[in-house]
Amino acid sequence: MSVLNNTDEQIKPVPVMELYLFGENTLEKHHITSTSQISQYITQPYKLWLNVCGLDNAPILQDIAKIFSIHPLTLEDIQNTNQRPKLEEFDEFVFITAKMIFTKSGLEEIITEHISLLFGHHFIISFQEKPDDIFDAIRVRLENPSGKMRKLGTDYFTYTLLDMVVDQYYKLIELIGERNEVLEDGIIGDNKNIKLADIYLHRKALQDIRKSTWPLREILSAWKKSDHPFIKKKTSVFINDIYEHTVEILESLELQRETITSLVEIYMTHLSIKQNEVMKTLTIIATIFIPLTFIAGIYGMNFKVMPELEWKYSYPLIWIIFITTTIAMLYYFKKKRWF
Amino acid sequence: MSVLNNTDEQIKPVPVMELYLFGENTLEKHHITSTSQISQYITQPYKLWLNVCGLDNAPILQDIAKIFSIHPLTLEDIQNTNQRPKLEEFDEFVFITAKMIFTKSGLEEIITEHISLLFGHHFIISFQEKPDDIFDAIRVRLENPSGKMRKLGTDYFTYTLLDMVVDQYYKLIELIGERNEVLEDGIIGDNKNIKLADIYLHRKALQDIRKSTWPLREILSAWKKSDHPFIKKKTSVFINDIYEHTVEILESLELQRETITSLVEIYMTHLSIKQNEVMKTLTIIATIFIPLTFIAGIYGMNFKVMPELEWKYSYPLIWIIFITTTIAMLYYFKKKRWF
Amino acid sequence: MSVLNNTDEQIKPVPVMELYLFGENTLEKHHITSTSQISQYITQPYKLWLNVCGLDNAPILQDIAKIFSIHPLTLEDIQNTNQRPKLEEFDEFVFITAKMIFTKSGLEEIITEHISLLFGHHFIISFQEKPDDIFDAIRVRLENPSGKMRKLGTDYFTYTLLDMVVDQYYKLIELIGERNEVLEDGIIGDNKNIKLADIYLHRKALQDIRKSTWPLREILSAWKKSDHPFIKKKTSVFINDIYEHTVEILESLELQRETITSLVEIYMTHLSIKQNEVMKTLTIIATIFIPLTFIAGIYGMNFKVMPELEWKYSYPLIWIIFITTTIAMLYYFKKKRWF
Amino acid sequence: MSVLNNTDEQIKPVPVMELYLFGENTLEKHHITSTSQISQYITQPYKLWLNVCGLDNAPILQDIAKIFSIHPLTLEDIQNTNQRPKLEEFDEFVFITAKMIFTKSGLEEIITEHISLLFGHHFIISFQEKPDDIFDAIRVRLENPSGKMRKLGTDYFTYTLLDMVVDQYYKLIELIGERNEVLEDGIIGDNKNIKLADIYLHRKALQDIRKSTWPLREILSAWKKSDHPFIKKKTSVFINDIYEHTVEILESLELQRETITSLVEIYMTHLSIKQNEVMKTLTIIATIFIPLTFIAGIYGMNFKVMPELEWKYSYPLIWIIFITTTIAMLYYFKKKRWF
Amino acid sequence: MSVLNNTDEQIKPVPVMELYLFGENTLEKHHITSTSQISQYITQPYKLWLNVCGLDNAPILQDIAKIFSIHPLTLEDIQNTNQRPKLEEFDEFVFITAKMIFTKSGLEEIITEHISLLFGHHFIISFQEKPDDIFDAIRVRLENPSGKMRKLGTDYFTYTLLDMVVDQYYKLIELIGERNEVLEDGIIGDNKNIKLADIYLHRKALQDIRKSTWPLREILSAWKKSDHPFIKKKTSVFINDIYEHTVEILESLELQRETITSLVEIYMTHLSIKQNEVMKTLTIIATIFIPLTFIAGIYGMNFKVMPELEWKYSYPLIWIIFITTTIAMLYYFKKKRWF
Ligand SMILES: [Mg+2]
Ligand SMILES: [Mg+2]
Ligand SMILES: [Mg+2]
Ligand SMILES: [Mg+2]
Ligand SMILES: [Mg+2]
Ligand SMILES: [Mg+2]
Ligand SMILES: [Mg+2]
Ligand SMILES: [Mg+2]
Ligand SMILES: [Mg+2]
Ligand SMILES: [Mg+2]
Ligand SMILES: [Mg+2]
Ligand SMILES: [Mg+2]
Ligand SMILES: [Mg+2]
Ligand SMILES: [Mg+2]
Ligand SMILES: [Mg+2]
Ligand SMILES: [Mg+2]
Ligand SMILES: [Mg+2]
Ligand SMILES: [Mg+2]
Ligand SMILES: [Mg+2]
Ligand SMILES: [Mg+2]
Ligand SMILES: [Mg+2]
Ligand SMILES: [Mg+2]
Ligand SMILES: [Mg+2]
Ligand SMILES: [Mg+2]
Ligand SMILES: [Mg+2]
Ligand SMILES: [Mg+2]
Ligand SMILES: [Mg+2]
Ligand SMILES: [Mg+2]
Ligand SMILES: [Mg+2]
Ligand SMILES: [Mg+2]
Ligand SMILES: [Mg+2]
Repeated sequence: MSVLNNTDEQIKPVPVMELYLFGENTLEKHHITSTSQISQYITQPYKLWLNVCGLDNAPILQDIAKIFSIHPLTLEDIQNTNQRPKLEEFDEFVFITAKMIFTKSGLEEIITEHISLLFGHHFIISFQEKPDDIFDAIRVRLENPSGKMRKLGTDYFTYTLLDMVVDQYYKLIELIGERNEVLEDGIIGDNKNIKLADIYLHRKALQDIRKSTWPLREILSAWKKSDHPFIKKKTSVFINDIYEHTVEILESLELQRETITSLVEIYMTHLSIKQNEVMKTLTIIATIFIPLTFIAGIYGMNFKVMPELEWKYSYPLIWIIFITTTIAMLYYFKKKRWF
Repeated sequence: MSVLNNTDEQIKPVPVMELYLFGENTLEKHHITSTSQISQYITQPYKLWLNVCGLDNAPILQDIAKIFSIHPLTLEDIQNTNQRPKLEEFDEFVFITAKMIFTKSGLEEIITEHISLLFGHHFIISFQEKPDDIFDAIRVRLENPSGKMRKLGTDYFTYTLLDMVVDQYYKLIELIGERNEVLEDGIIGDNKNIKLADIYLHRKALQDIRKSTWPLREILSAWKKSDHPFIKKKTSVFINDIYEHTVEILESLELQRETITSLVEIYMTHLSIKQNEVMKTLTIIATIFIPLTFIAGIYGMNFKVMPELEWKYSYPLIWIIFITTTIAMLYYFKKKRWF
Repeated sequence: MSVLNNTDEQIKPVPVMELYLFGENTLEKHHITSTSQISQYITQPYKLWLNVCGLDNAPILQDIAKIFSIHPLTLEDIQNTNQRPKLEEFDEFVFITAKMIFTKSGLEEIITEHISLLFGHHFIISFQEKPDDIFDAIRVRLENPSGKMRKLGTDYFTYTLLDMVVDQYYKLIELIGERNEVLEDGIIGDNKNIKLADIYLHRKALQDIRKSTWPLREILSAWKKSDHPFIKKKTSVFINDIYEHTVEILESLELQRETITSLVEIYMTHLSIKQNEVMKTLTIIATIFIPLTFIAGIYGMNFKVMPELEWKYSYPLIWIIFITTTIAMLYYFKKKRWF
Repeated sequence: MSVLNNTDEQIKPVPVMELYLFGENTLEKHHITSTSQISQYITQPYKLWLNVCGLDNAPILQDIAKIFSIHPLTLEDIQNTNQRPKLEEFDEFVFITAKMIFTKSGLEEIITEHISLLFGHHFIISFQEKPDDIFDAIRVRLENPSGKMRKLGTDYFTYTLLDMVVDQYYKLIELIGERNEVLEDGIIGDNKNIKLADIYLHRKALQDIRKSTWPLREILSAWKKSDHPFIKKKTSVFINDIYEHTVEILESLELQRETITSLVEIYMTHLSIKQNEVMKTLTIIATIFIPLTFIAGIYGMNFKVMPELEWKYSYPLIWIIFITTTIAMLYYFKKKRWF
Repeated sequence: MSVLNNTDEQIKPVPVMELYLFGENTLEKHHITSTSQISQYITQPYKLWLNVCGLDNAPILQDIAKIFSIHPLTLEDIQNTNQRPKLEEFDEFVFITAKMIFTKSGLEEIITEHISLLFGHHFIISFQEKPDDIFDAIRVRLENPSGKMRKLGTDYFTYTLLDMVVDQYYKLIELIGERNEVLEDGIIGDNKNIKLADIYLHRKALQDIRKSTWPLREILSAWKKSDHPFIKKKTSVFINDIYEHTVEILESLELQRETITSLVEIYMTHLSIKQNEVMKTLTIIATIFIPLTFIAGIYGMNFKVMPELEWKYSYPLIWIIFITTTIAMLYYFKKKRWF
């Protein structure tokens, strides 16, 4: 029934769980170590953000699922790190799953992470695959009592999280763009240090971002059209803004892909031109000197009877032959426009 | 009228037929050897799963068709192993035909099998082309009296069978993915053991899975939209789950195809770069030494009258010529950035 | 007004015309030599199949057009052998034009033929471009008094003709598939007998079938949706069957096209690899022996004053130079991983 | 406001204007030299065809525009020879602009001409860019008092003009098809006279026709769906006929384009195969004879002390070395399947 | 929340702001240096055009946004120079953002500029990224009291600005077209001065224009369908005109792209043909003379015992060998059609 059935039953690490309770005048942060702690906060008259890092401990996730009435198949989608981004509406909450792609130190160390977001009337839950995240700015903004995050609904909160995700895509595209320019200089400026592996890895990075952005665009498009009670009119202008960002990202990716394809083609043509030049050089030298060497070889033979050897003007004559042959050859190559 | 008319009338082997009768409290398994046995089980107040392995014996299949009111053209689709996957709704049952693709021992031995599934109010029939199948887990799950398979309708049962089929596609894609990584290492890491035939066979495997998955996705999409009385609301969440799996599979296939194309292109470029290097080496050596050899050849000629031969400083002079020519050549190549 | 205006007015051969009169209890066959004979059969209380072979004799075709109220533009479509397949509904009949593509002796002699089918309430007319056809099985089945062809309507009759046409497409695709496998063995198995012309002709055959199948699929799709009074509900299951066949054919064509493209690419890569190997062999031999030959050439010079020539150990010394140079070169090539 | 503002104000030539007045019993032809003459013919109870050749004289065109109430932007479209083909409906007339592409002497001299057609209740106006046209057959048919052109409406008249235009596209495609066959013979039959420029020009011609045909197809599709009062039911069967022609043309273009692409690919592969053959020949000869020449060179050295020179059987021995080396090499190449 | 957060807080230059007040009888121009000046003009009974050049000074832009009730996200779109062109309708105004692409001195110095246009009931605001613009013609036309710009609504005014923008795209496409022809001559006419970088930069320019034109076309399409109260029926014919221009531009871009692709392919084939020729020349010369040189080398050996050296006719005999070998080789190459 599941693509993910983990048959081995090791003890899995408990996920790191932060729980924020917040209202216009309140902000509390709690570290949760056991799922039984969660229930006590739900009943309070505040909004709740539960951030869960780590998807390996199935029983704990199942407990959370029970608390918030999450369907087993939805839980499967939360745990399945290969799950395609999607948005699903339920009575109790809206479910979104997407990919965080970000880097802490440049293109060498890209982190791809499967995240899931659920927002109900009074709660937001975020499930993350790995401990690090890009939500620190959120935590800071949450502390501002007059900020929209505290005042507006859970849909706006979720929008803010998604916005963070999309911002990271932009940063990666910018990094790739910079690398592309290095590549461009390398190929157009005839720098010799082009590494084919780089081109390949570039393309793969583009593919990865595109693979995550396409369905994200669909998600936002679905959100825009949704009439779910938890999705409010007021947020639609913000959602439209990140929707447009995804469109821009996809167009940038397409352009960068075309650019790389074009560069590789230029590079291939460049190699062909160089090869032609090399071969012409070889051919000109070889076709001139190989016959001359043969002629010299003839008169290096030691036959007893070779009348030319005795003649007085043989040597100057042979030089005349050498020179006229060379001139004729050069004229032929010139006429053929080989140089 | 049929693509399949088998004119030769050999005696075909009787298909292997298992029949399960099951209800919430009952589970019986019967081996059927003659179609006449089937009728006695239909009338019983249980659900029935008839699993038929082998499509060659036309008369027996026609008997079954008669028992369950299967139209001759539908029977043709069951027997035609080239039939494209599809879903067709009839009054008595829903008809689905698809492809099982699985392997028992790796990518070397992929088994592709044409299967057809029919589910009516109280029965499920599965027709298989070959004896082996991937339904053993089903047989086990059926023994669990409190399992959904026993409790829910025939549509859920059929879903379970299709889910098994799709799970196998995932496994194959994973296997291909692993092979792709080997290929990637081979090309990017400049391992010399790349076999072109492997690339070709990879691509073919991708094509085969895609060919079966595209229409399967259409089938599931049709199922989702169907309002046939045997297709219940309750199953739709499960169907949506495998529908999403097919979308994921198709995207994975597309990505893997792009990856292979990209790798082949990188490989071609790599070959061109290497060729350039080889030719440059040859050309540098040849254009330096061929003229020098010619000069040496000149003074190897045996003409009686060759004044230079008699001169005292001819030999050191010729060495000066050798060396300056070589230096000039190397300078020329350096300026042309050949090394 | 017409693409087809034949300005030269030679006497064109009279087309071969067969006329069948049939009912549940009747079957008469008549050879028609003049169009005036047709009218007498129309009024009879039987269904009528008129099969016309040969489109060159314009006056006779115009006579037939007059008898059956065929519009001049429709007649033009019947005569225009470049006409794209289509279905058009008129009050008196449904008009279908398509391409027969078949072979009597393998891929070497493919016959492409423009055919048009009209079916009204009581008549079917088939116009063929060339004498041979693939309808002999029809003629046989017509003799069976209890067959569907005799009992069902003119739409079923027309379906049967189209089914024959589509069956021939399958046969051609199978033939091409077999050839593709030969090609595959040739390229993957490194057989040297690949003929480029074959690849080209393969592709052209695929194109031709696709060109005819695409609009045929549209025709059948139009038929399925049609509510013309002569198109009966009962036939729709049959039409759907050949509709699916055309989908299958188009998918097969697409796959075969991809296969050929993939094979050509593999072949190109293969040639590049081989070229690289050849060039490396040449370069290794040449870069080792050309400098050695030069050294030998030096001591083949006949200068009077060449001190080395007189030295006692010159000859073994020169051998040491030869051998160390060779070893150095081989080491260099080894390090460059040229072999 | 206009892409076309011609700032220099030279005196532009007056366009050539023919005016036909016609009814079922009337046909008058007038040559117009000043726009003031037109008004007198409009009021007469006949249909009017005004054919204007030459778009450079802006004032005269503006006069005509005033007479027939043509909007400045529409006049701009008439004058803009880069205008994309389109159909626009106005209250007073239907406006169509398209491209005439024809040749008087083969593919070398293709004439592309921007034409505009307007048809109102009682008038047809055709604007042409250049003097020559393809409407002579129209002028002849107009003289036939019982012809449809005289009897049917202005929409039929316009259809006839468009039909002429489309017929010329067919002729060009046929010409290109013939050239393609020459190219095919050249590449498949290994004729050496392939001119790359030809391939390029072929492609360009295909592009040009496609560029004009795509929007023409849209025009005809719009006409088919139009309910403008000047577009009558009766003409729709004719419009459908040329609509189908444009579909056929576009499919032919696509096929010819694929054919050329396929041919170029075959040609590239062919060049690679030949290159391989050439290089193998060189490598075999060079790797056999270069080492042998070196060996001969050794014993051509003039060292005083070279014991082998004195030995009695040195010479036959060296021949044995020559021959065994050669045989070994040939065996190696044979094993590598180089010939 | 924004892709554009500029963290460094330098003092940014005040944008250059022109303000035009105009009515049928009025035209006033004011240079604005502080946003507080704007309010006094809004209340006057004239239409107002505010042209703002420079997007770096955030506070001033925020002031303007406040005055005209521009939403923060819209202001973000105005400032974000990477913003994709779009049209958005608000109650107070219609918002359009697009790209100006123009050149003052040829393709070497293309200026791409992000502009935003807002038009309300009585005002038009244009935000520009850089000081130079292409609106001088507008300023002139505005001085004409009977011109449409003074009489018609703000939508017509905005149309005029967009029309200017699109006209510049045409000019660039023409420039690229001219360069393409130079490239074409270079490749088809075998001029040797093809710079690969040029091809690459061409393609990039095409991409840039396409990237801006695609969404502009969408904008105009949205405008055409809009029923916003500030968008009047009367302007629709003008909007349709520039809509058609964008379609033409996109088709031109597509054609030019295909042309470049086709040229690069031709060029690659051309290089292959030349390479083949070069290699054939080398191979013919080398395979003829290398064996001959070996033969000459044999008889240059200094073995004491070499009977042939003593024979009387050895020398003429060896010439016969030389000549017959050469002829045989040439015959072989001729037969292989190498020349
Ligand atoms: Mg599954
Ligand atoms: Mg699942
Ligand atoms: Mg994380
Ligand atoms: Mg953002
Ligand atoms: Mg995708
Ligand atoms: Mg997708
Ligand atoms: Mg925005
Ligand atoms: Mg695009
Ligand atoms: Mg069938
Ligand atoms: Mg059939
Ligand atoms: Mg099986
Ligand atoms: Mg498909
Ligand atoms: Mg799932
Ligand atoms: Mg025509
Ligand atoms: Mg016609
Ligand atoms: Mg025939
Ligand atoms: Mg097609
Ligand atoms: Mg089509
Ligand atoms: Mg079927
Ligand atoms: Mg497909
Ligand atoms: Mg305009
Ligand atoms: Mg003309
Ligand atoms: Mg178009
Ligand atoms: Mg027609
Ligand atoms: Mg197309
Ligand atoms: Mg934003
Ligand atoms: Mg500016
Ligand atoms: Mg304009
Ligand atoms: Mg786009
Ligand atoms: Mg216009
Ligand atoms: Mg196009």
